[in-house]
Amino acid sequence: MHRRIAHPGLQNLVMSAEQAAAMIRPGMTVAMSGFTGAGYPKAVPGALAAQMEAAHARGEDFQIKVLTGASTAPELDGVLAKAGGMELRLPYQSDPTLRKRINDGELEYIDIHLGHVAQYTWFGFYGHVDLAVIEVVGINEDGSLIPSSSVGNNKTWIEQADKIILEVNLQQPEAMDGMHDVYYGTALPPHRKPIMLVNPDDRIGEPYLRLDPEKVIAVVETDAPDRMTPFAAPDETSQQIAGHLLDFFDSEIKAGRLTDKLLPLQSGVGNIANAVLAGLSTAGYTGLTAYTEVIQDGMLHLIRDGVIRVASATSFSLSPAGIEEFNSNIDFYRERIILRTQEISNHPELIRRLGCIAMNGMIEADIYGNVNSTHVAGTAMMNGIGGSGDFARNGFLSAFMSPSTAKGGKISGIVPMAAHVDHTEHDTMLIITERGLADLRGLSPKQRARTIIEKCAHPDFQPLLQDYFDRASRESFGKHTPHLLDESLSFHHRFVETGTSLPATAGL
Amino acid sequence: MHRRIAHPGLQNLVMSAEQAAAMIRPGMTVAMSGFTGAGYPKAVPGALAAQMEAAHARGEDFQIKVLTGASTAPELDGVLAKAGGMELRLPYQSDPTLRKRINDGELEYIDIHLGHVAQYTWFGFYGHVDLAVIEVVGINEDGSLIPSSSVGNNKTWIEQADKIILEVNLQQPEAMDGMHDVYYGTALPPHRKPIMLVNPDDRIGEPYLRLDPEKVIAVVETDAPDRMTPFAAPDETSQQIAGHLLDFFDSEIKAGRLTDKLLPLQSGVGNIANAVLAGLSTAGYTGLTAYTEVIQDGMLHLIRDGVIRVASATSFSLSPAGIEEFNSNIDFYRERIILRTQEISNHPELIRRLGCIAMNGMIEADIYGNVNSTHVAGTAMMNGIGGSGDFARNGFLSAFMSPSTAKGGKISGIVPMAAHVDHTEHDTMLIITERGLADLRGLSPKQRARTIIEKCAHPDFQPLLQDYFDRASRESFGKHTPHLLDESLSFHHRFVETGTSLPATAGL
Repeated sequence: MHRRIAHPGLQNLVMSAEQAAAMIRPGMTVAMSGFTGAGYPKAVPGALAAQMEAAHARGEDFQIKVLTGASTAPELDGVLAKAGGMELRLPYQSDPTLRKRINDGELEYIDIHLGHVAQYTWFGFYGHVDLAVIEVVGINEDGSLIPSSSVGNNKTWIEQADKIILEVNLQQPEAMDGMHDVYYGTALPPHRKPIMLVNPDDRIGEPYLRLDPEKVIAVVETDAPDRMTPFAAPDETSQQIAGHLLDFFDSEIKAGRLTDKLLPLQSGVGNIANAVLAGLSTAGYTGLTAYTEVIQDGMLHLIRDGVIRVASATSFSLSPAGIEEFNSNIDFYRERIILRTQEISNHPELIRRLGCIAMNGMIEADIYGNVNSTHVAGTAMMNGIGGSGDFARNGFLSAFMSPSTAKGGKISGIVPMAAHVDHTEHDTMLIITERGLADLRGLSPKQRARTIIEKCAHPDFQPLLQDYFDRASRESFGKHTPHLLDESLSFHHRFVETGTSLPATAGL
Repeated sequence: MHRRIAHPGLQNLVMSAEQAAAMIRPGMTVAMSGFTGAGYPKAVPGALAAQMEAAHARGEDFQIKVLTGASTAPELDGVLAKAGGMELRLPYQSDPTLRKRINDGELEYIDIHLGHVAQYTWFGFYGHVDLAVIEVVGINEDGSLIPSSSVGNNKTWIEQADKIILEVNLQQPEAMDGMHDVYYGTALPPHRKPIMLVNPDDRIGEPYLRLDPEKVIAVVETDAPDRMTPFAAPDETSQQIAGHLLDFFDSEIKAGRLTDKLLPLQSGVGNIANAVLAGLSTAGYTGLTAYTEVIQDGMLHLIRDGVIRVASATSFSLSPAGIEEFNSNIDFYRERIILRTQEISNHPELIRRLGCIAMNGMIEADIYGNVNSTHVAGTAMMNGIGGSGDFARNGFLSAFMSPSTAKGGKISGIVPMAAHVDHTEHDTMLIITERGLADLRGLSPKQRARTIIEKCAHPDFQPLLQDYFDRASRESFGKHTPHLLDESLSFHHRFVETGTSLPATAGL
């Protein structure tokens, strides 16, 4: 009957999502599976949200603390945020309802390097984990678990939580069995050992998540796909940004600093990332590797075409068409994709050893190369830092990419001073917009400013930035990193006050 | 005759500092030894500066690019800065003359994580290294070198430079022979391997620096001590800051997150760091370890007393009295101190594995826990980021410490928004002033702000900060990290305009 639940004892715990959700009590810290919209529980959060709303209607408090791998989907973050059911949420998120609550100041949100979440939980920094809700592909006879379309922090959640609710999702293909690599060699200091991974395709763990069946209090069967948006073909701006990065790769190969196999690629999600990946194919690369967080459609295409021979990640993030492509050719992809725990996919030790090429989006860069990845106008959370810091700090190269303007030209992607800093001048090497690429390696702050303004700024903002820098270079208190402190956040302040960073006198 | 130069061929290259310096030509990139005032060349830079000044007097340009381990001394940074002889300097520095030139905008200064300098040089980011000037204790018969009181980037400089000038300093004790551990297992990606160090006292390298004698163009004998300032006993403010951190260790031990052996300590330099170390002794700790950059007087005392059983670093930074204590008991200390290359002392892989406790100074923290370690008023370079980022990002704990005010109470160490960010909210766990300790672990931005304002701010600034936060919480564009963008840098702007961050109405 329960064909994906081979463990007899756990078969007996099959129940409805409503019954399972009823075991989650107010105030609990609940760790859930899910990473960039893949492998999140599909049923229990919705049932829980309904019970929260009923409690709220009765005048009762019902909120929990929610820990995940990264972003999830409307069925988790969306419903719990709508119900007002989260008092705390960590780490990365991208749900519109949840984002609004965060920026209305209605819930505590903690933004953490994705490579730090598991260890900080082990260190006890987030308190006791009462319960875990984990989606899996199936349960083996010995109780071990076949992971789903993301691994994320599931190993940690299963080990740290007192009690566990499993969701067995029949729609996730059983043929994923064998593509995961769950590393069990982590420890707390002073007992840590070297992690013996030296190539992106090294397997250092086990295909299954270990489980103590005694901790399981419910098993829920689901049959629903990961909720993903359709894949959008890269737009012209994204293609221009990608073009600058690919030209840079060319010149680095000519200079002997890279070979035509590059180095393991890390790529964020979204339109620009897909454009870069598509460009690698057009440029004729073959036999590359990826050591990254997420396999998105563009990456899948490169694997199919042999441009990438192996990709290591912690999660998928595929469109419906991508899922169809993957499921139809799963035996092919299983040999070429390894899904790991996110403390391994994002581990500083491994990223530095492998020398990853880190390619991430940003909200803005300032003229000195400090990057804001998270905060609109310095105050409103967009999604979170994700793994960009893990890779930018430790990689061989760190590229941050954005169109030179946003909001139809009203906001500049290059600003005098970043209103929030996620990546400091010490960690950023390449700033890229559709206008061009600023190579900051080996440059002092003032050299950086000249390069960024010249190469990356949009013409509508370039004169403003140049004027700011020129005046700051003359009038600044210190002239190492010249700033005019009463003007340095003027772009942001104008945007908040008037809806555009352009001054009224700019004559547009 | 040349008793510390056992290699016959190199004996023949002994010459004066003036003769050696004459081989350094304008425009060269010259890498020099030296880290926190130890092991820097004592004679050649001075002779070079004199030749530069003579050239300048003749109307000729004479500037070079200078790469070091970290800060040096007046005999290197001081004389070259005074001569206007540096067009570029990296990384960390602390020389007053050099600092003034940097902040007058007269030279390019690049501030880099100390754990990144060697690899970025290998990656080719700083161009070709023409020449290295390295202080050593002696030259062995096979040409290998006994390192001096700092190792720093010397391995990289010797390997990367076309030509090498050696300074053999007779005043550095020969008995240091055997205390260094030079790791030769590094490589460029994709050829990197795990670094098999799992305890601070593991030796993974060789006691000597390898040398190709063919590259040596000059050997200069010197007889001068490292120039260090006398050790100042910790003042009351530093002792209060140390007390808060020691109380925190107590509570962490009680909570089971640390044992009474703590974890390997990393400690910055200066009065506060010495107070923390002294406090560890008073508190009765024994058998601790240090995995840090610098051995200063306070660390030496702890080793003497058995509080610390082994310390790994890349350099000494001792007062004249500390040098005397070390030299008088060198056989004892040689068994308990290991000096490594700075890419190993500051390696993310090792800092994360060991779970270091990172303790560093700061210029200011903002109410959300973003830390400025480098820039006064956001624009003037103090020293540099040093290794604080290597340790804060990757350690088990990251503490940033400062008095709550500076300049006789005119500047607040806690500000609404940091005017420069070296360590983001993602990387800071503890903010400590003499007023108290803010434990930011597991807190959202607004929770952090309340804690930092309450625990750390000075009473003269506390009401201003609370008022800012209260108004920002109501009026901010986004309420995840509330800010009022036209006021967020007002502390700094007032300081620049009036010499104090206190408003005229504060009535002091």
